[in-house]
Amino acid sequence: MKRFLAAVVLAPLFALSPLPSALTIPGTLSAQVGDGPRFTSAGELIRPADFREWVFVTSGLGMTYNTSATANPSPSFTNVYVNPSSHRAFMKTGQWPDQTVFVLEVRASASEGSINKGGSYQTSLLAIEAEVKDERRFPGKWAFFAFGRAAEMKDRVEQLPATASCYSCHSANGAVDNTFVQFYPTLMEIARRMGTVRPTFVDTPVPSH
Amino acid sequence: MKRFLAAVVLAPLFALSPLPSALTIPGTLSAQVGDGPRFTSAGELIRPADFREWVFVTSGLGMTYNTSATANPSPSFTNVYVNPSSHRAFMKTGQWPDQTVFVLEVRASASEGSINKGGSYQTSLLAIEAEVKDERRFPGKWAFFAFGRAAEMKDRVEQLPATASCYSCHSANGAVDNTFVQFYPTLMEIARRMGTVRPTFVDTPVPSH
Repeated sequence: MKRFLAAVVLAPLFALSPLPSALTIPGTLSAQVGDGPRFTSAGELIRPADFREWVFVTSGLGMTYNTSATANPSPSFTNVYVNPSSHRAFMKTGQWPDQTVFVLEVRASASEGSINKGGSYQTSLLAIEAEVKDERRFPGKWAFFAFGRAAEMKDRVEQLPATASCYSCHSANGAVDNTFVQFYPTLMEIARRMGTVRPTFVDTPVPSH
Repeated sequence: MKRFLAAVVLAPLFALSPLPSALTIPGTLSAQVGDGPRFTSAGELIRPADFREWVFVTSGLGMTYNTSATANPSPSFTNVYVNPSSHRAFMKTGQWPDQTVFVLEVRASASEGSINKGGSYQTSLLAIEAEVKDERRFPGKWAFFAFGRAAEMKDRVEQLPATASCYSCHSANGAVDNTFVQFYPTLMEIARRMGTVRPTFVDTPVPSH
């Protein structure tokens, strides 16, 4: 995954036809604990219908973990949300409880439209991805999911195979427990205060501008 | 205001010392309705302590409403949140109820840090601003507030004078009722469906990339 997954490019659908709050998907196992992940009886993750009412922890624009000689001509915004009960737990402990769900919403950007003349603002939905902590279900405790391009968005998907690069990248580079808390400014401050930053994390001073 | 206010540039504080949920400010008038605005008895808006748990509606990077010959070398992220009960009302009606509160969180950006090599991610808090709908309190129904630079953030402020450019700009250009819903993709779709977009709003096709 890029900030979860590899690149994904596409067209809107989810914004046009939001799922109802109460999904009625055949074979659904009622394994949800509060606002945590919901899986079908076959082990597929059901796409959270209400993640835009969860807690937003950051957004990026055109973020990439690979060096490139040229600027990205089509940078995407990446909005990261986490389920509210896990966010509350993190604010108290600096750690992610079991049943934590992150959702990554990928959106196209535009510069000129309405009265805007420069910089970038968000437009159509491109993709939705997720990272879930379920200690009993996943051998590595965490798993990643990609619901596909917006025009053909799936409402439930199997986890990505453990060979996907997101697993090794998050495991090696996440500031806190497999997650990129280093890019979530408010949460990183909590983790520093609570002493929950991974000991091997290289906390380089950030050249803000 | 830029996307509320004029430019604001600065240094972090709020992230380092979050306010407790229950503010105990002398002279506070208990005029809050649910998660709506809270004012002191002198009419100052109390900075919402928990806005990061509200509903995120969009972020931009380096957005500007003025044409510039040169690119902004220090673009800021602007995260927009709205109080949950007003968001729920908008999702049903396409309109903002009385007692709606928007918070604009301005954050610095960085490109290279941790494993990130390009694009932009969010770093230190720069400023917090707000827009509030209170039909009885404000002659124009809406008012704007700036809590100042992060290093000297105020916990309560008077409204900006009605001569501030944010009032005339939002009134003339907001897609829905004094607010820039045209930059909130999910909400703009709701407003189109509900027929609540201002009749004079020029809904130009957006050149996404």
